[in-house]
Amino acid sequence: MLTINLNTNSSLPMYEQIYAYIKNEIKTGNLPYHYKLPSTRSLAANLGVSRNTIDMAYAQLVSEGYLETVPKSGYYVAMVSDLMHITATPAPVPQPVLKLKMSFQYDFSPFTIDINSFPYNIWRKLSKNCMNEYNNDLFLLGDKQGDKSLRAAIGRYLHESRGVNCSASQIIIGAGADYLLQLLSQLFQYVEMSPALEDEIPINHISNPGSTVEKIIIATENPTYKQAYKIFTGLHYSVIPIDLDQNGIRIQPLTESRANIVYVTPSHQYPLGIVMPIKRRMELLQWADKAPDRYIIEDDHDSEFRYKGKPIPALQGIDSSGKVIYLGTFSRAVAPAIRIGYMVLPKNLLELYKQNLYYYSSTVSRVDQNIITHFITDGYFERHLNKMRKLYKGKHDLLIQSLKIFKDKLTIEGENGGLHLLLRFLSNASEQEIIETAARKSIKIYGLSEHYITKPEPHSPPSILLGYANIPEGNIQAGITALYEALKDYL
Amino acid sequence: MLTINLNTNSSLPMYEQIYAYIKNEIKTGNLPYHYKLPSTRSLAANLGVSRNTIDMAYAQLVSEGYLETVPKSGYYVAMVSDLMHITATPAPVPQPVLKLKMSFQYDFSPFTIDINSFPYNIWRKLSKNCMNEYNNDLFLLGDKQGDKSLRAAIGRYLHESRGVNCSASQIIIGAGADYLLQLLSQLFQYVEMSPALEDEIPINHISNPGSTVEKIIIATENPTYKQAYKIFTGLHYSVIPIDLDQNGIRIQPLTESRANIVYVTPSHQYPLGIVMPIKRRMELLQWADKAPDRYIIEDDHDSEFRYKGKPIPALQGIDSSGKVIYLGTFSRAVAPAIRIGYMVLPKNLLELYKQNLYYYSSTVSRVDQNIITHFITDGYFERHLNKMRKLYKGKHDLLIQSLKIFKDKLTIEGENGGLHLLLRFLSNASEQEIIETAARKSIKIYGLSEHYITKPEPHSPPSILLGYANIPEGNIQAGITALYEALKDYL
Repeated sequence: MLTINLNTNSSLPMYEQIYAYIKNEIKTGNLPYHYKLPSTRSLAANLGVSRNTIDMAYAQLVSEGYLETVPKSGYYVAMVSDLMHITATPAPVPQPVLKLKMSFQYDFSPFTIDINSFPYNIWRKLSKNCMNEYNNDLFLLGDKQGDKSLRAAIGRYLHESRGVNCSASQIIIGAGADYLLQLLSQLFQYVEMSPALEDEIPINHISNPGSTVEKIIIATENPTYKQAYKIFTGLHYSVIPIDLDQNGIRIQPLTESRANIVYVTPSHQYPLGIVMPIKRRMELLQWADKAPDRYIIEDDHDSEFRYKGKPIPALQGIDSSGKVIYLGTFSRAVAPAIRIGYMVLPKNLLELYKQNLYYYSSTVSRVDQNIITHFITDGYFERHLNKMRKLYKGKHDLLIQSLKIFKDKLTIEGENGGLHLLLRFLSNASEQEIIETAARKSIKIYGLSEHYITKPEPHSPPSILLGYANIPEGNIQAGITALYEALKDYL
Repeated sequence: MLTINLNTNSSLPMYEQIYAYIKNEIKTGNLPYHYKLPSTRSLAANLGVSRNTIDMAYAQLVSEGYLETVPKSGYYVAMVSDLMHITATPAPVPQPVLKLKMSFQYDFSPFTIDINSFPYNIWRKLSKNCMNEYNNDLFLLGDKQGDKSLRAAIGRYLHESRGVNCSASQIIIGAGADYLLQLLSQLFQYVEMSPALEDEIPINHISNPGSTVEKIIIATENPTYKQAYKIFTGLHYSVIPIDLDQNGIRIQPLTESRANIVYVTPSHQYPLGIVMPIKRRMELLQWADKAPDRYIIEDDHDSEFRYKGKPIPALQGIDSSGKVIYLGTFSRAVAPAIRIGYMVLPKNLLELYKQNLYYYSSTVSRVDQNIITHFITDGYFERHLNKMRKLYKGKHDLLIQSLKIFKDKLTIEGENGGLHLLLRFLSNASEQEIIETAARKSIKIYGLSEHYITKPEPHSPPSILLGYANIPEGNIQAGITALYEALKDYL
């Protein structure tokens, strides 16, 4: 039995003291591998604390890999192989657990999905079917671009649901959007750059023959999906942030930026939620048409979720000059850890890909490709999307309804689509103050400013991304009321 | 019934005429999706050709995605979604099918594994177990470096079998060696480069602040694993090929090359099969120790397969200065399409990774990670390796025995390990002539020269990589006899 001396006068919450004690017992080896911990109920009774307190401590230990759960059995000490190495080096300074990963009563994360609605049984069935085919070839290297049947299925889906025009041969499957953006960034190096720009390279500049990395300038929306920004800069491209107006990326600063590539999210701007109207779309395509080395990356990250009106078809579908690279994943529509994304290349870039980057093997296992192919072609994907749209719309509507408690102290933007709302508060408090005030009441909300490449103007109102995908519908009203109670003195 | 007019006077082989006819019927839509083709036996009888001819035509159509096989049922027309698009563009010039993908009677490929020995039932069981846990979290994004339990399992395996010293925290899981080499290449950009090299960058050179891509010079063995070479040059690094002697990469030209990174395969040089002796290993480590920006990439690609004597532990295990990056995959040891590789970073590079590249999500699905974790920890991996070592050793020994028919007309190198032998022929014929002569007798063999970055010296003997992993043991003797009959006039 664990005996833990709890200090009720400590500034550390109970669950943190319990967490720290057990962690230390595991690290020193006092609790060995596969030791079964007492049930949350019995430990709670034993220590005279609430069961919730034990739940939080155990959950933190599981998330850090110290404990493992065995369904229907309980919690066990995990294999912590680092131990021998850790004991040989000076003990690390203990971090306050709040900074590591804190459990909040209400978490309005905009980065997640409703994982409880993951179609587990269907996935399980498809996975079983796939393995029951006894097809050894599934374990030999497949097509570099991804299995043709999957590309055909994605092509049909994109055509029907998003108006994308492409053949399966233009599609490349990869292990997530990050990987595809890396691959695409490498591909840009083989695009012939316009002479005007080439003149500016110093004559005695040393680089590999054919290197064009310095000639490529990528414009992004500001704010934007920072992950893409980091990938571009990590690969040494110059990135120019372009401000938005109410219709999306502004064309004049884009033109003046001398960028040749632009990365945009026209169907539902991330994170502001702007739906780019057709006029701005045409202007963007016209911008690209003005030089042979100009391309548009259309990241259609959450276009599946639109709750009002008809979605505008993808930019790719109205592009007649082969200027748009269309990018999508199953991270939002199905689940993040599936690690399957897709990219539709215009034919000229497809040629460059085949000539220059065809040495890269596929990054997705063929079993996973097989499962998602059947998920789409057997009709499960469509049914899942319909279900999720209904579910998310319910949460979205309830959230908007609940937010009325704030009256005119906030405005809502980016509604009717995606998985989060944008709240702009009428307040003199800073974004950071608002987030911290909410956190003290165990409510996690997420600031807008971290999505900016250049910081937003100092006088802009404190703004919050309020995600609703993974918050239980029953918690929305209470969570927003609690948020209002927490913030009302600042408004 | 298919009626095909075969032209016996045509220079096109029969199977190619049949292939071209059926392909055209599918492309024009005359044979619709899911049309069941006649059995090879009945079509052969009907056309008055051998069954083998029909087999070759069907196999080619399957490999190009026009036909699908349904086990125990037969051949069906596949879904060819590109069709509408293809017919809208000018018909492509027909390619001679021999250049596309030819079926050979004997294929001594060095690039594959014995896929018939893939532990299908175990994989199926583990996959089922994994999904039976009903753990939705498997579909949420996991640890960026890969699940900790998998990293711990790999760390223990590498320590026990290869003498690698690392903690799980130093391991990064990724979707194959190619992906990990890309990630590693990006990581090198954050290594502080020695001032000596920095002086040589022109002052008016424009690039992003902190860009060091031009300062990094990567040395590789020559010949080498060309895929790595392509990845390095594709990312704009300067690559310098270094010649080998009988002990592996030569140290003097490496030192003179001013490279700061070297990519090597010390346990079994690819493709020559040299096992680097301990003295050369120490010299290599000493080379790395001489400057803070020098690193060694140790690609331990097929170290699992050694048939004689004790394997030399990994270079990483005798490196006390944190200079070796250890790279491995399950492509050879289990199967290529699993798409799971691992990289062990020295602690200083681990820090740089965490500081600079921690925005990249994991590229491997958590289900796949879960399956391979259990494959290792439940003892299946070790049993599979033992089985494969025995199987491959049997093929290896039989191949060497069979090659005695060539007497002194060839010498064998690179034996006792890996999945191929290197044959050097005593002949005035070129490597290409030897390959083509064998191909005319339906024997596929693979030249050494394509593995060179700079071509081998003109007077070097014609050399062949003879892979034995996926050739049935019963075919080895006959295949080598046929090879001898084909080549004997050239020797």
